[in-house]
Amino acid sequence: MSTSFAPLKNDTFLRALMRQPTDYTPLWLMRQAGRYLPEYRETRKQAGSFMGLATNPDYATEVTLQPLDRYKLDAAILFSDILTVPDAMGLGLSFAEGEGPRFANPLRDEKAVRALQVPDLSSLQYVFDAVTQIRRSLDGRVPLIGFSGSPWTLACYMVEGGGSDDFRLVKSMLYDRPDLMHHILKTNATAVAGYLNAQIEAGAQAVMIFDTWGGALADGIYQTFSLAYMREVVKQLKSEHNGVKIPSIVFTKGGGLWLEEIADIGADAVGLDWTVNLSKARAKVGNKVALQGNLDPNVLFAKPEQIRSEVEKTLQAFGKPAANSGHVFNLGHGISQFTPPESVTVLVDAVHEISRSMRA
Amino acid sequence: MSTSFAPLKNDTFLRALMRQPTDYTPLWLMRQAGRYLPEYRETRKQAGSFMGLATNPDYATEVTLQPLDRYKLDAAILFSDILTVPDAMGLGLSFAEGEGPRFANPLRDEKAVRALQVPDLSSLQYVFDAVTQIRRSLDGRVPLIGFSGSPWTLACYMVEGGGSDDFRLVKSMLYDRPDLMHHILKTNATAVAGYLNAQIEAGAQAVMIFDTWGGALADGIYQTFSLAYMREVVKQLKSEHNGVKIPSIVFTKGGGLWLEEIADIGADAVGLDWTVNLSKARAKVGNKVALQGNLDPNVLFAKPEQIRSEVEKTLQAFGKPAANSGHVFNLGHGISQFTPPESVTVLVDAVHEISRSMRA
Repeated sequence: MSTSFAPLKNDTFLRALMRQPTDYTPLWLMRQAGRYLPEYRETRKQAGSFMGLATNPDYATEVTLQPLDRYKLDAAILFSDILTVPDAMGLGLSFAEGEGPRFANPLRDEKAVRALQVPDLSSLQYVFDAVTQIRRSLDGRVPLIGFSGSPWTLACYMVEGGGSDDFRLVKSMLYDRPDLMHHILKTNATAVAGYLNAQIEAGAQAVMIFDTWGGALADGIYQTFSLAYMREVVKQLKSEHNGVKIPSIVFTKGGGLWLEEIADIGADAVGLDWTVNLSKARAKVGNKVALQGNLDPNVLFAKPEQIRSEVEKTLQAFGKPAANSGHVFNLGHGISQFTPPESVTVLVDAVHEISRSMRA
Repeated sequence: MSTSFAPLKNDTFLRALMRQPTDYTPLWLMRQAGRYLPEYRETRKQAGSFMGLATNPDYATEVTLQPLDRYKLDAAILFSDILTVPDAMGLGLSFAEGEGPRFANPLRDEKAVRALQVPDLSSLQYVFDAVTQIRRSLDGRVPLIGFSGSPWTLACYMVEGGGSDDFRLVKSMLYDRPDLMHHILKTNATAVAGYLNAQIEAGAQAVMIFDTWGGALADGIYQTFSLAYMREVVKQLKSEHNGVKIPSIVFTKGGGLWLEEIADIGADAVGLDWTVNLSKARAKVGNKVALQGNLDPNVLFAKPEQIRSEVEKTLQAFGKPAANSGHVFNLGHGISQFTPPESVTVLVDAVHEISRSMRA
């Protein structure tokens, strides 16, 4: 199927992930298709709800492409939600307006945990259809990133039943019944690997695993309950499709202390948040993985000169890319819904201009 | 005034902070006087509100001593709130039931920032009265810790007007108007140093600076906007009172990546959260500062065997204390209001027993 896709015109992002030379530092933004864009809010209004957007391939394609029409971004990322997989497992996902995700059937006891199964991927066909349709619509402009939540991050929502600020329920289970937690994580790892591989089959040209809540775990616990299962996912990923390499990115927000261990699980790139010193990170693991990040999204609330100055600091921290190293510019977390859209123009131009001049 | 206090019967905590030999690893718990204790909830009901408790030295003394009557803790900590200082600056603190702190007059523009002044310490006399009364009531059982929020952490609340999960307003000011942010932080640093010194004069035997939100800052920004001002506070602290050394502790939650820099600001001890590997931390800075921490409070929701096992892991991670090193056991964050009080008994006994046997 994917043999019919248009050839790629801008492969800078993929080259950086594979630590090959590039003319400039490529960038994309986590949550780049989102509420800060008026055209996104308009489409969402038409769709009626967030899930109305995410489950309809036409809408998903439309919003995925919106930021690319405005900005010279170097990658597109599938518009979807990390909770599609637990939803397909029968947990009953909903989004109450202005709140966050909610599961009608969270995993709170042994019976619920033991009943958990890897979902039939056909129930996620709407995601794979969106991937294929987006890839076609991109027409080779930039590569398309597929993604999933990490096994641990999915487990947080599956046990808590929604967002949490202390992770009391999921960590209570982890410490009190590690056997149940491992059962959830093993199931999630199999599901996530299958889900990402199906996205690759459908047209995703790179994949990213979002471990949004790994940084909430204790040292030692993180390695056993989050990192080990991401390693399992990466091991099961198709590293190429139709003879083309599919690079993978892992991102544990708040995982800076575990950088060397994260760089060791077999992924091609590691995402970093803004607490990490890019220069030190490169010195530690830059010859093993590409690095992605790591501007604080709040920089985008400053004036253009300050945005440029912070972009330059970030690019200089990584330093001049050399053979066998790669940097993909990104924020250290999703872009804020309150971001002025014109700040993103300043950001994108600054990254491209400054990184080009650094290579000159 | 403090010459009239009873001599100290248990100085294990102070000795550990000063990296002197101890018979066992001392412990106390952040927020040990709190809602998980039924007797605390009872006193709070009488007081009518949180601020009713904190501003009345009789109530503050009563709740400070409650956990010591139940558990063999090795230190008491003043019952108060980190926001007393900005309240004294005229920002108008209130606590809405079930919400969090709110400031009626947050710092949102240049005029408000420029009007900010170091408060007259007499407006905080209720805190110093509480310190003296608690110290007397302790009658030498264990040392009393005084505390303050860090300049940056106070600034977060002062600009946001309350809690925040993205720090958008305070970081917008930081990136857009660093001059205003430095003005706030400089004022806060002077106020915090004076506040802590007055607590020392009133009877505090150690002081702790809580930098709860330093870990939200980017690398480079943390050093300039949080750490530099904590260094300023530490420099101004009375390191002894009436010929007795007053040790200081700094704690940046989420600051593990900056451990070496934090250990370098002149404090006697550094607090650590659970993401930090205690063994590595000790290897890096253990001969320069004592370490305090770092169990995940959620461990207290597990069964007694698991609690003991996690305590043992934490003690073993630090390793056998040797000359010139010190470990104070604590949680990596405040104890949860949902903690079963009997779990704390298990914890306290485990820390004392296991750490004694490790020294045998």
